[in-house]
Amino acid sequence: MSRKKHGGDKEVVQGPTLQIIPLGGLEQIGMNITAFRFGESIIVVDLGMAFPTDDMLGVDLVIPDISWLLENKEHVLGYFITHGHEDHIGAIPYIINQLNAPIYATRLTMGIIEHKLEEHNLLDDTERHVVSFGDHVKQGDFDIEFIRTNHSIVDAAALAITSPAGTVVHTGDFKVDYTPVYGDPIDLQRFAEIGKNGVLALLCDSTNAERPGFTASEKTVGRTFDQLFQEHTDTRIIVSTFASNVDRVQQVINSASKFGRKVVIEGRSMVNIMEIAQQLGCIHIPDNTIIDVEQLKNYPERKTVIITTGSQGENMAALSRMATGQHKKITITQGDTVILSSHPIPGNEKAVTNVINDLLLKGADVISQDVHVSGHACESDIKLIYTLVQPKYSVPVHGEYKHLIAQKKIAMELGMSEKDIFVLHSGDVLELGNGGAVVKDKVNVGAILVDGKGVGDVGNAVLRDRQHLSEDGIVIVAALIDKEGGHIIGMPDIQSRGFVYMREADELIEDCIDLVAEELTVAMEKGIRENGRLKGIIRDELGNFLWRRTERRPIILSVIMDVNT
Amino acid sequence: MSRKKHGGDKEVVQGPTLQIIPLGGLEQIGMNITAFRFGESIIVVDLGMAFPTDDMLGVDLVIPDISWLLENKEHVLGYFITHGHEDHIGAIPYIINQLNAPIYATRLTMGIIEHKLEEHNLLDDTERHVVSFGDHVKQGDFDIEFIRTNHSIVDAAALAITSPAGTVVHTGDFKVDYTPVYGDPIDLQRFAEIGKNGVLALLCDSTNAERPGFTASEKTVGRTFDQLFQEHTDTRIIVSTFASNVDRVQQVINSASKFGRKVVIEGRSMVNIMEIAQQLGCIHIPDNTIIDVEQLKNYPERKTVIITTGSQGENMAALSRMATGQHKKITITQGDTVILSSHPIPGNEKAVTNVINDLLLKGADVISQDVHVSGHACESDIKLIYTLVQPKYSVPVHGEYKHLIAQKKIAMELGMSEKDIFVLHSGDVLELGNGGAVVKDKVNVGAILVDGKGVGDVGNAVLRDRQHLSEDGIVIVAALIDKEGGHIIGMPDIQSRGFVYMREADELIEDCIDLVAEELTVAMEKGIRENGRLKGIIRDELGNFLWRRTERRPIILSVIMDVNT
Repeated sequence: MSRKKHGGDKEVVQGPTLQIIPLGGLEQIGMNITAFRFGESIIVVDLGMAFPTDDMLGVDLVIPDISWLLENKEHVLGYFITHGHEDHIGAIPYIINQLNAPIYATRLTMGIIEHKLEEHNLLDDTERHVVSFGDHVKQGDFDIEFIRTNHSIVDAAALAITSPAGTVVHTGDFKVDYTPVYGDPIDLQRFAEIGKNGVLALLCDSTNAERPGFTASEKTVGRTFDQLFQEHTDTRIIVSTFASNVDRVQQVINSASKFGRKVVIEGRSMVNIMEIAQQLGCIHIPDNTIIDVEQLKNYPERKTVIITTGSQGENMAALSRMATGQHKKITITQGDTVILSSHPIPGNEKAVTNVINDLLLKGADVISQDVHVSGHACESDIKLIYTLVQPKYSVPVHGEYKHLIAQKKIAMELGMSEKDIFVLHSGDVLELGNGGAVVKDKVNVGAILVDGKGVGDVGNAVLRDRQHLSEDGIVIVAALIDKEGGHIIGMPDIQSRGFVYMREADELIEDCIDLVAEELTVAMEKGIRENGRLKGIIRDELGNFLWRRTERRPIILSVIMDVNT
Repeated sequence: MSRKKHGGDKEVVQGPTLQIIPLGGLEQIGMNITAFRFGESIIVVDLGMAFPTDDMLGVDLVIPDISWLLENKEHVLGYFITHGHEDHIGAIPYIINQLNAPIYATRLTMGIIEHKLEEHNLLDDTERHVVSFGDHVKQGDFDIEFIRTNHSIVDAAALAITSPAGTVVHTGDFKVDYTPVYGDPIDLQRFAEIGKNGVLALLCDSTNAERPGFTASEKTVGRTFDQLFQEHTDTRIIVSTFASNVDRVQQVINSASKFGRKVVIEGRSMVNIMEIAQQLGCIHIPDNTIIDVEQLKNYPERKTVIITTGSQGENMAALSRMATGQHKKITITQGDTVILSSHPIPGNEKAVTNVINDLLLKGADVISQDVHVSGHACESDIKLIYTLVQPKYSVPVHGEYKHLIAQKKIAMELGMSEKDIFVLHSGDVLELGNGGAVVKDKVNVGAILVDGKGVGDVGNAVLRDRQHLSEDGIVIVAALIDKEGGHIIGMPDIQSRGFVYMREADELIEDCIDLVAEELTVAMEKGIRENGRLKGIIRDELGNFLWRRTERRPIILSVIMDVNT
């Protein structure tokens, strides 16, 4: 049993034990990845990415450090993916590159994963299994069942992970929707049945744990669309939402079809996902509804709808480009009705507001309130799941730390004891068995930054430099010296970027040149010749001089060349 | 009359005309400054700063471009300040430096302004007049009356600006508080009286125009504090709020006093403002209530309250430093009750959430809901003011564009005609008189960036470089060549910052050195000698090479030195 490897701690868990090891997703939003280990068997749930935080300048995306998985490479039996959102699948190509193992997922989820693998030329090398709801996958000591849930993307699944230690239920991201747009409601009977048989632990989505009540059905948004289409028969309608929200797009198409409008889908990521959804039959598009953006001009504006990405105010997304007049094919005009069918994800509020202001400035009518429902379970939905599953232990997952704490409070309100609720940190090894549960150990976890083709080559030192450069810029000093003669040749050259507008800083630059020439001359008179020391003198003296003059501290970088080389 | 100067437009305004010229504050939040001109007389309302937006990397603050005022320097009679918030007073030292004129403000507002002028060594050179509510200031063709309002800072004023063209009411930032903590309610009678006499135009705060109903009284927060203090008798209480919210601090002190707790005020800006408020009698602190942070250890935790800055998640503010364990004197411990008495200003949501998560991680109990009321009028309050003032024309001010539009809708709901409502842009010259109102002209306006001591020396070129540097860093190539001999001397030197971790990129750098040496050699063989062309070749070839290898585009800067110099 794996416990031998860790040792140290007092042994409290008796009998067969399961280890749950979140390798990401708890200190940051996104980057969801959790390992389950029983004996020699390891399975992994989700391989998510995170978006860079504000201090990760220039970084494209963030993936989990899987060194612990790599150390246990031969035991990793498969990746089990709950649904097709980036924070659950975004790291797949990067991780498959390091540790190839079979991927198990439901139909649409797999469709999106395959598209991603194809982009990275990994499709042929990756074993993939499409799983239906109710199917069991047996791998090593594990039996994994996929259970239907509802979410803001079709085909989301919870997992019932059974090992000799017992059954653990992982909800993934979910909501309870009694009237979903596509497919069936969450399989509450199966949750109940599994609960009845005894559940060791529940890993439950915490995202909306702070919100009281129940999450409304996706269908309510459809009714809102109908109403808005009814009220705006004279204008073009532009609806933006998440690229992957197939049901939302379906409902806009339904309203458009009802009111005799043609539909354009705009935004690469949305077009991709809708193509996959259509191939798999997850979206129903009536004939002669979709037109190409080029055909828009052939129809009166009041007979068209544009469905687009950019509901989070993303700079390069279609809606933002329309709002700022940079979209090549669609121009916002006086009277356009723009519906933002989304809520800003925390951190995106300002960007979304900027888009709204830009749209209003162009004369559009913007509707952004009450045209969205969440894809996550609220407090009462969470209580429902706990009451069906009745787990022995609770492990709140998915959400910021404050959300995990909110779910902990809910579980306690339902009568669970505080000691049976584990708000974990990434890397914690939670060991569970009949005899008890305890955080036994800590494995290495971390975030790997991806910038362009570079995976992990941008670390703290580079980020610190980028931060510094972004605030005060850089000054480059170049001097040609004669080390033998002990004097400078000509005057030093000074260039800068991001520091000051050089053409209007002649005097400052002249003073810098004089200062550097003087300091180098004095230093060489003192017999100093080593480049390192000469550069140090320039850095210190010029740095102090610039601070006094400008109260800025640019990076100072020197090039010193010896004419005798 | 000034109209002659502009010409061009069709003359529609008859009789004596007033010009209203917003010089800032309409395209961005903050930076409020509005000029009023009648004949040869110009007065200016508020001199605000704005905080830099996300794309203004390294910028400390933003002030309005006052070149139009400078062109009309001899006519500028005074600055009239509505209240002491940075977005209304923050540019004062910078503008006084360019165009000195008397400042008129109420007591606390002037106290804060004087503190600012002192920091910039401008106090002795600036003429200042403290104005009481009801006082009239006569300057040139203008009579300016200060009218009491309520806001999230004490001593806020609206202005009634009368010229031969009529009276304009400028509300400043305001709310309607029937039971304010300090001083009297907004002088609604005077608004009514002025309205009864006829008002040409109303410039009204739009910040909360999207919110239905009335804004609650500041006193309601006091009751909430009492309740929270009642519920948390066993723990230390830490309350964070805006540094300038004297009434809020007063109410925390009241609750502390009631429950026998000592109070520490922490955070430089809050300490400064409370000192000014105390000197002016705007805050009442019972004897033996305030203690120094050093004395905290002498009292049981449950007998202390810390009032602190940082409610907006500002990095360097006291609460953020406590949350991340960087505060030298206050350590958050298990059980601390932390009350965030504020709402995040748009754009700060993520930073505030990060602070909450950090506090929870340290074991604190965080209360952030329903412990705040806004300082701005909601929809029904705005309707009240319109109904009292009954202006001929409406000019929504203060707020984002969407808020101005929301106020426009309110005014129309009250029966105003769309053509009488002017949603202006900064720089618009709105000309008003008995005969009508029209946007006649556009003056130069803009935002000047302040970075350290530099005012205006950071412009778009520098910001673009900072953006570029922050994303991909910089690569510096240095080569010594012999132009006469037409060959390179030694191998080029490559340094980089913010591009890639150099110690782990040996191979890449070696390849860069080889490439540059090769390209320079080939170029010189072709007879190319000019530095500009050689640098261009390096930039292009190395740039392409690095893109292929890394998918990053660092700035490439070359230093080429000729050994024959």
